Amino acid sequence: MLLEQINGPKELKALSIPQLEELAEEIRRFLIEKLSATGGHLAPNLGVVELTLAMHYLFDSPTDKFIFDVGHQSYVHKILTGRMGQFDTLRQYKGLCGFVKRSESEHDVWEAGHSSTSLSAAMGMALARDLKGENNEVVAVIGDGALTGGMALEALNHIGHEKKKLMVILNDNEMSIAPNVGALHHYLGKIRTDRHYQKAKEELNQLLNKIPAIGGKLAKTAERFKDSVKYLLVSGILFEQFGLTYFGPVDGHDMEQLLDVMEQARNVNGPVLVHVITVKGKGYSPAEADSFKWHGISPYKIESGQVLKAVGPPMYTQVFGDTLIEFAAKNDRIVAVTPAMPGGSGLLDFAARFPNRMIDVGIAEQHAATMCAALAMEGMKPVFAVYSTFLQRAYDQVVHDICRQNLNVVFAIDRAGFVGPDGETHQGVYDIPFLRHIPNMVLMMPKDENEMRRMMRTAFEYNDGPIAIRYPRINGLGVEIDQEPLPIPIGTWETVREGDSAAILAIGPMLQVAKEAAEQLKREGLNVRVINARFIKPLDESMLLQLAQEGMNMIVLEESSELGGLGSAMLEFYSLQNVKNVSLRIIGVPDVFVEHGSIEEQRQEAGLTADRVAGELKAMMPRARKRVNGPA
Amino acid sequence: MLLEQINGPKELKALSIPQLEELAEEIRRFLIEKLSATGGHLAPNLGVVELTLAMHYLFDSPTDKFIFDVGHQSYVHKILTGRMGQFDTLRQYKGLCGFVKRSESEHDVWEAGHSSTSLSAAMGMALARDLKGENNEVVAVIGDGALTGGMALEALNHIGHEKKKLMVILNDNEMSIAPNVGALHHYLGKIRTDRHYQKAKEELNQLLNKIPAIGGKLAKTAERFKDSVKYLLVSGILFEQFGLTYFGPVDGHDMEQLLDVMEQARNVNGPVLVHVITVKGKGYSPAEADSFKWHGISPYKIESGQVLKAVGPPMYTQVFGDTLIEFAAKNDRIVAVTPAMPGGSGLLDFAARFPNRMIDVGIAEQHAATMCAALAMEGMKPVFAVYSTFLQRAYDQVVHDICRQNLNVVFAIDRAGFVGPDGETHQGVYDIPFLRHIPNMVLMMPKDENEMRRMMRTAFEYNDGPIAIRYPRINGLGVEIDQEPLPIPIGTWETVREGDSAAILAIGPMLQVAKEAAEQLKREGLNVRVINARFIKPLDESMLLQLAQEGMNMIVLEESSELGGLGSAMLEFYSLQNVKNVSLRIIGVPDVFVEHGSIEEQRQEAGLTADRVAGELKAMMPRARKRVNGPA
Repeated sequence: MLLEQINGPKELKALSIPQLEELAEEIRRFLIEKLSATGGHLAPNLGVVELTLAMHYLFDSPTDKFIFDVGHQSYVHKILTGRMGQFDTLRQYKGLCGFVKRSESEHDVWEAGHSSTSLSAAMGMALARDLKGENNEVVAVIGDGALTGGMALEALNHIGHEKKKLMVILNDNEMSIAPNVGALHHYLGKIRTDRHYQKAKEELNQLLNKIPAIGGKLAKTAERFKDSVKYLLVSGILFEQFGLTYFGPVDGHDMEQLLDVMEQARNVNGPVLVHVITVKGKGYSPAEADSFKWHGISPYKIESGQVLKAVGPPMYTQVFGDTLIEFAAKNDRIVAVTPAMPGGSGLLDFAARFPNRMIDVGIAEQHAATMCAALAMEGMKPVFAVYSTFLQRAYDQVVHDICRQNLNVVFAIDRAGFVGPDGETHQGVYDIPFLRHIPNMVLMMPKDENEMRRMMRTAFEYNDGPIAIRYPRINGLGVEIDQEPLPIPIGTWETVREGDSAAILAIGPMLQVAKEAAEQLKREGLNVRVINARFIKPLDESMLLQLAQEGMNMIVLEESSELGGLGSAMLEFYSLQNVKNVSLRIIGVPDVFVEHGSIEEQRQEAGLTADRVAGELKAMMPRARKRVNGPA
Repeated sequence: MLLEQINGPKELKALSIPQLEELAEEIRRFLIEKLSATGGHLAPNLGVVELTLAMHYLFDSPTDKFIFDVGHQSYVHKILTGRMGQFDTLRQYKGLCGFVKRSESEHDVWEAGHSSTSLSAAMGMALARDLKGENNEVVAVIGDGALTGGMALEALNHIGHEKKKLMVILNDNEMSIAPNVGALHHYLGKIRTDRHYQKAKEELNQLLNKIPAIGGKLAKTAERFKDSVKYLLVSGILFEQFGLTYFGPVDGHDMEQLLDVMEQARNVNGPVLVHVITVKGKGYSPAEADSFKWHGISPYKIESGQVLKAVGPPMYTQVFGDTLIEFAAKNDRIVAVTPAMPGGSGLLDFAARFPNRMIDVGIAEQHAATMCAALAMEGMKPVFAVYSTFLQRAYDQVVHDICRQNLNVVFAIDRAGFVGPDGETHQGVYDIPFLRHIPNMVLMMPKDENEMRRMMRTAFEYNDGPIAIRYPRINGLGVEIDQEPLPIPIGTWETVREGDSAAILAIGPMLQVAKEAAEQLKREGLNVRVINARFIKPLDESMLLQLAQEGMNMIVLEESSELGGLGSAMLEFYSLQNVKNVSLRIIGVPDVFVEHGSIEEQRQEAGLTADRVAGELKAMMPRARKRVNGPA
């Protein structure tokens, strides 16, 4: 096997083109086999095998800088840079990261996870290079989906202006995660079709020769005409107008053509865009047939393509999608808005049922949020379905457009809390701190799937401003579902277990951990109250005052940053109300970025466990001041 | 005077074109006179007089929806919709808002303050209209500067995809606030030049007629050739590629031409872009000559154009700019990055001195932040100079690219705290809550201009990750300046006044208020300690533990949201450390949006006064629990 001889990019450069092609096939087989056990981003990586080979063949990593947008398509790069042996641990706790990771290799020079950052990174690296008087190359690989993200377009505008030497490789597979939307997508489609008429262009050239020579007072016209001819002969005129030299489109699975075009592009002394057409899932027929499903995949059987999935109660995501259909059937003002995540957000059935009320804006969280504001301004009831981590990108729009104008936008914040194998770039542990301080915001989290449905009803009946439901990336508890979910009075908490010696206040899945801790303590003779603090804003002020009056020792347990969260909200309340001598201990996610692993492992690492809660509470009980250690 | 007869858009529609032109001149004289007393956004409004008249002449506000991007160019709209009599109170407390304001008029249907939101708003309103089966028009006015903001480009991409009927008016004055940068700007420049060659285009048409007829196997070629001819004849091909029908460029001060083109555009059943060329400051020669200076202006003398400015110590902004030059002269790794605010951020002298190290990216905060991350990754020392309120737009990039990768980016966060007449859209009262919970972030605020310089040195010598200095939009205190500013140990606070009966902890300008309160209390025999809590993160933990040990009654005073701020950080610290029985009262900006007025009035409204602090502290002193009322 050739692959076993490749310990780094250097060995690659000695290969012939047929050998590179052979290597590509070996890499594909390796990926298909390894990921069948671990799961991972199979389809995107199968699409960039030749492209990654070409990059390492033509450039000198890490002197030349490779920037992978999002970074989930870096598996081939990892294989070629000495990490082949670690693929059994892919996306597992302390194992190989599913994204680019600087701590893994000197060849990983820029990390991501969120989309559309690569062009800004490339621009910064090219600027730094020129300021330092160095001469390395900078190469960014960006998908056609990521290109529609606003910050990528901001960067493109700046790149075309500064004219620094750098290469943008547009990895055009006609997909973001879901099929792409947007005018740019149509534009790229036109180019893709266009390449079949290369021959026609040659004929056109002959045609143009028949036009009489132009001179004299027609000189200006002639100049403009030259531009026009360029338009005829160069497909990527839009990129040229942005100030980049365009190459392509080129078949991303034709090794020879790819090397040829990329080499030409490398010789240009300025910004270039190489338009590479790839097939997501290339070489594995189940993935080619449904590259959407195979974008990020669970373990599967190689022969059949059958995906191995644990059975269990429906995930919160699905409960959201199913319940939304029920409400939308009764209320024609409900509109769902997603930034390129119709599947991930559980909206595929909704889209089939209400195509006119399903608005996928592409990777464009900022636009999505402000558009929701306008929909609400005109009397619609928009539901912005978005992952906690991606809502970060619309923070300003939430403040400035939605909350400041106090508009009836419903936020369905999925993947709140730990997210498991996607790791630190995707953790949903900041939405409470970044939403809680915004005036007019209502923020809640359900304890189970039935309460999820009740909160959806609460949100749809609420007409006093923005309201958000955050829910985790896990299965529901399998509880009984009320046919008709009843609304919940805003700002009310619920005592789920009586007790008088102390209280644990928790939200979402942490309520299970709190109950478990209470069970442990019961065995030791302590009767601990457990409260479902389901409204993070507004707080249940009367319950808070009562807890203080009772002189309760309290622990607040949240799978969210320990800074600026529910616990802080409670402390602030007591401070602002001048309630003194409160005993309240916060247990949340420590002030560090938590890496990939299972959600259970991440909770363990963060110290969000029943044992810890029980221990901390016991330590609080003897009124004496006593120091307790946090998580290791 | 015609103007006095116009009480609303209806009266306008009865006028002839010469009358509209006369009215335009009257409006200009009105604006020049009124703003000479109040100050305000003179140049942008002088530029859109005819455009606003044309909009109200052709459309029916408020049935038809007018969306003004940013909204500082809405003065003419306010004059035409019954608010002429309120201009003496412009931008003053409880007076006419300097931006679009729904509470002022039914003609104000969408508010802004931050740039680039109008296209998303227009898209949302057009969608809502079609879903509701209504048929009003939607018109967005956006500047060429705002168009480069990522969210505007996201919206453009979606607008071109959905094909809803709406009109984008591109108000092209070749400026954002500073002269524009970016490839789009060059592109628009090309179109502007191009319009002088209209005649050439006609000649070209004749030329094209000489080409032999195309048919048969050349049909495909012919199709593409048609596109090419369109490129020759239509200037705005970039917008056409985005899926909008392009009209223009049209002279924005030629009433007849403007009405003609806008009327044609209105008849298109889909998204259109009308490219209007305007002159910022049109009709007032000082403003035409320096539209950058006259974008937002203080009161001035009409005849001479002399701006009346209060004298005083330099503003923090200027101290930042001047000091940056000193450091950059000694350290060639320092690079300044601004999102279109070189003047507002005090960087004009820096730009003149170090043109290669001054990077203005245009209105593109997201790109700016991530580019800073990449500059830092490559060993540069980037300073991201940005207003607190605009940094909101880069929140995700600060989390995901800068802090997560722990890169040495220096943040110079200007206009932290209240900002005065720009009001609620621009208040810098959220940067503490949205930055404080991000791992690796260091956040500080100086008590005076000398400490500002010391913090800059601290930041430039710090190489362990991101570090931010936030400073207010006010003058310094006029304190003595150390020639050589000494660095400050990270996480250390400073006792600026001794005292043992209680403590006030404050940051930035609030330290003056704290001292004043302490003086008041001294007269009543109370000896109050005042602490400069200059590091918001990390906290001075040893001082905090000592304060708790002393059993001090504490007030934390911050011109920042009372939720998630410095006070919360202290409460969290005590909770996480299990320190009990702490008496700490937060006085910050209440959980509402604070409107325009002077900074002094805004502080008064928020209750950030020495009287209040003294009163609250006294109420805390007799250990009994006692309720104290918050601000009215």
